[in-house]
Amino acid sequence: MLSAALRGELVKILGKGNVSFEREALVSYSYDAMNRKYPPDGVAFPGGAGDISRILKMANRENFPVVPRGAGTGFTGGSLPIEGGLTLSLERMRNIREIDAENLTADVEPGVITGDLQAEAESRGLFYPPDPTSVKFSTIGGNIAENSGGPRAIKYGVTRDYVLGLEVVMPTGEIVFTGTRKTLKGVVGYDLTRLIVGSEGTLGVVTRAFLRLLPLPPAQKTMLITFKSLEDAAGAVSSIINAKIVPATLEIMDSVCLRCVEEYVKAGFGGVEAVLLVEVDGREDGVGADVEDIRRISTENKAVGFRVASTKNEVKDIWRVRRNVSPSLNRVRPNKLNEDVVVPRSRLVELVRGIRGIAETRGVLIASFGHAGDGNIHVNVMFDKTNADETGRGEDAVKDIFELTLSLGGTISGEHGIGIAKLPYLSMELTPDTIEVMRKIKRTLDPNGILNPGKIFSKERSPGYI
Amino acid sequence: MLSAALRGELVKILGKGNVSFEREALVSYSYDAMNRKYPPDGVAFPGGAGDISRILKMANRENFPVVPRGAGTGFTGGSLPIEGGLTLSLERMRNIREIDAENLTADVEPGVITGDLQAEAESRGLFYPPDPTSVKFSTIGGNIAENSGGPRAIKYGVTRDYVLGLEVVMPTGEIVFTGTRKTLKGVVGYDLTRLIVGSEGTLGVVTRAFLRLLPLPPAQKTMLITFKSLEDAAGAVSSIINAKIVPATLEIMDSVCLRCVEEYVKAGFGGVEAVLLVEVDGREDGVGADVEDIRRISTENKAVGFRVASTKNEVKDIWRVRRNVSPSLNRVRPNKLNEDVVVPRSRLVELVRGIRGIAETRGVLIASFGHAGDGNIHVNVMFDKTNADETGRGEDAVKDIFELTLSLGGTISGEHGIGIAKLPYLSMELTPDTIEVMRKIKRTLDPNGILNPGKIFSKERSPGYI
Repeated sequence: MLSAALRGELVKILGKGNVSFEREALVSYSYDAMNRKYPPDGVAFPGGAGDISRILKMANRENFPVVPRGAGTGFTGGSLPIEGGLTLSLERMRNIREIDAENLTADVEPGVITGDLQAEAESRGLFYPPDPTSVKFSTIGGNIAENSGGPRAIKYGVTRDYVLGLEVVMPTGEIVFTGTRKTLKGVVGYDLTRLIVGSEGTLGVVTRAFLRLLPLPPAQKTMLITFKSLEDAAGAVSSIINAKIVPATLEIMDSVCLRCVEEYVKAGFGGVEAVLLVEVDGREDGVGADVEDIRRISTENKAVGFRVASTKNEVKDIWRVRRNVSPSLNRVRPNKLNEDVVVPRSRLVELVRGIRGIAETRGVLIASFGHAGDGNIHVNVMFDKTNADETGRGEDAVKDIFELTLSLGGTISGEHGIGIAKLPYLSMELTPDTIEVMRKIKRTLDPNGILNPGKIFSKERSPGYI
Repeated sequence: MLSAALRGELVKILGKGNVSFEREALVSYSYDAMNRKYPPDGVAFPGGAGDISRILKMANRENFPVVPRGAGTGFTGGSLPIEGGLTLSLERMRNIREIDAENLTADVEPGVITGDLQAEAESRGLFYPPDPTSVKFSTIGGNIAENSGGPRAIKYGVTRDYVLGLEVVMPTGEIVFTGTRKTLKGVVGYDLTRLIVGSEGTLGVVTRAFLRLLPLPPAQKTMLITFKSLEDAAGAVSSIINAKIVPATLEIMDSVCLRCVEEYVKAGFGGVEAVLLVEVDGREDGVGADVEDIRRISTENKAVGFRVASTKNEVKDIWRVRRNVSPSLNRVRPNKLNEDVVVPRSRLVELVRGIRGIAETRGVLIASFGHAGDGNIHVNVMFDKTNADETGRGEDAVKDIFELTLSLGGTISGEHGIGIAKLPYLSMELTPDTIEVMRKIKRTLDPNGILNPGKIFSKERSPGYI
């Protein structure tokens, strides 16, 4: 609980309209896409790094947790105040301060919605590639905290690859600048920028980000390719890569996804067992040649359908299939555990086959789709949480999937992070020595354990706040 | 000094032929490209992570410095044992363990020479882009320690962008694995991989690296473009970027460089004040179109010469100009301070003009060349170190250049690191709070300060070793 005195001090720091202790606000800020509720004891809406610095110094002095929050679209509970305390919503800090077309950089505040930055960049012929599926809602600050990926990672990398420098308020309140503002290169001291990226809001609060932009590719082509077997689709993925084509997007959907989405959008997938969604971009001539190469490769891999979108609406139609997979699954079972394992691309067939086996053994429905091009598959274990037995079998299936993934040389999270959802599984992937190195860093930068406590690692020390 | 007992223990750990205390060895391992001599008290040639772990545990127990070393091609003293102790030469660990063409990855030991990895990758139609000028001698381990760049960074990024995961021996001897082996994505815990990259051998010893490869671009074109003024050349750089062409290389040489190199290679640069070396790569058709676009842009920016290499020998000829700049400078003055400042690309003309002013004010000769495409310029302040007055003016000029660079929104090191050479200037760029965050990380991971002490930061604590 935050005492009346502490509440008063927060009001003094932030101004009256910028902090709330009302029940409605606390409930509104109690959940993320993981769908578990942890109401904070207060919600602050800071206007800048100075506010946040003062709040963090106060939190260290008074020993209460502070949990930064973007749009709350995360899947692993990164923004949930599981020990209560103060939620720091960065939604007021949402200025795009500058788009610099000559240096190909952007200077943005953390509350900027990623899709808004993309649109603004595109209107100037520029391109911000990272595109998590939540792109219309999630914020740059949240994307940085989670090192968000998305379908374009195969060609363009992830959020980390577009962060040049950061203004960060450290857990103890110091405002520091990391990295560079407008240059790609810079090796002065340790790479604090990338230590902060992906640290899930546990090592600092990002208050300003200098991002790298690219020139917008002049042409783009979108293809939907259907196969009668998963093996054929996976074969096509390998052949495309081996032909030295680097698609901007190379997505796969398995038969369970196709059954669900078929009911939902009537895409005409009768008899189809796997679908690839491929996008290529670049110069007009090169893109045309890529499409022809991919058409030939698809035929060689026994594709039964090959569609190239020739209008913007056709592109939308193709993406509608992919974007409706997730909602359509919810119509089959009310709940799902949405994992984001990654395996080396060459092990994709083994992964998806193994997952089918697990679904059978555990008696649960599992739908797999995602980023075949980089081996990052979203595995959706579906269940009804009012059914304790089914829920238990679903949880067992998740553990099986993680074991399978690691045995194939993969990783248990490609883009969602650990948060609280995968915390119990962390030691399946990392050794105690590796975890201890990470905890040493956390302890030295946040000695009182006040910033986003209880995330990533099992609990180290409590701020003793109740 | 290493006592007889310690020497005996090291011989026991490494085997007799794999550690030396002979004067000749100590002298051979006493310098790098910075050209200052600090002989170690012993040189160890470990065969793997186990050896290194045992040595580091012993060093912590016995309080002696350990300094990892690749090929010793660094410019800032990163591999110099400035406090004596044991040099850890990684030259025995030089296996390319695997090139995985399907997953586009390599698994290499730190002593692999970067050029050898490039050649091995290219022989399989693959591509390892980072190419510091030292590429024929420097090692992957050294490149990782310094986060090496090179001319291709504008399109392909730097070493950091190609490191997927690392096996690292921590300063206290634990062997940890960071990141991923064969996947682009992976967000499990903090990004220790990139904390190690660029840490200049102060946070751990890399014993194995999993690297990302690309498909080798099928076509490449190399151009040499001459201008009568620096402003025209810089205008062409901006126009190329604004035209949304992303060259693989975009190098500039100023008039001082051209005078020196002209004497050396007779390139026919009479009346030329600036030269651009441009390379484009990609699909054959796209590359041809790029060349035509760049030709048009060059004409618009008053280029006086435009040469496209049409044979491999012509490509070599063009690169011979660029590669001979550095050696040709040494014929003019015997010594040089080789800096690697970076400014936002749009400030390039201001930087080079400012440097001319500094050269005039300080009465020293300064030659500038380098990576115009990413704003990373190698500024060579030339002097004769037997002339104390000229040496002093050269050092003053370096400080002026750093001040100018920072005032233009740049950074004092793009690829060489801090080491001991730039240590006195660190606080010009970083605030005390930022430096303190870095030192906290160093102290928590290397509490006895035994790994590569005295680098990057001014001295924190001595291991008390004499």
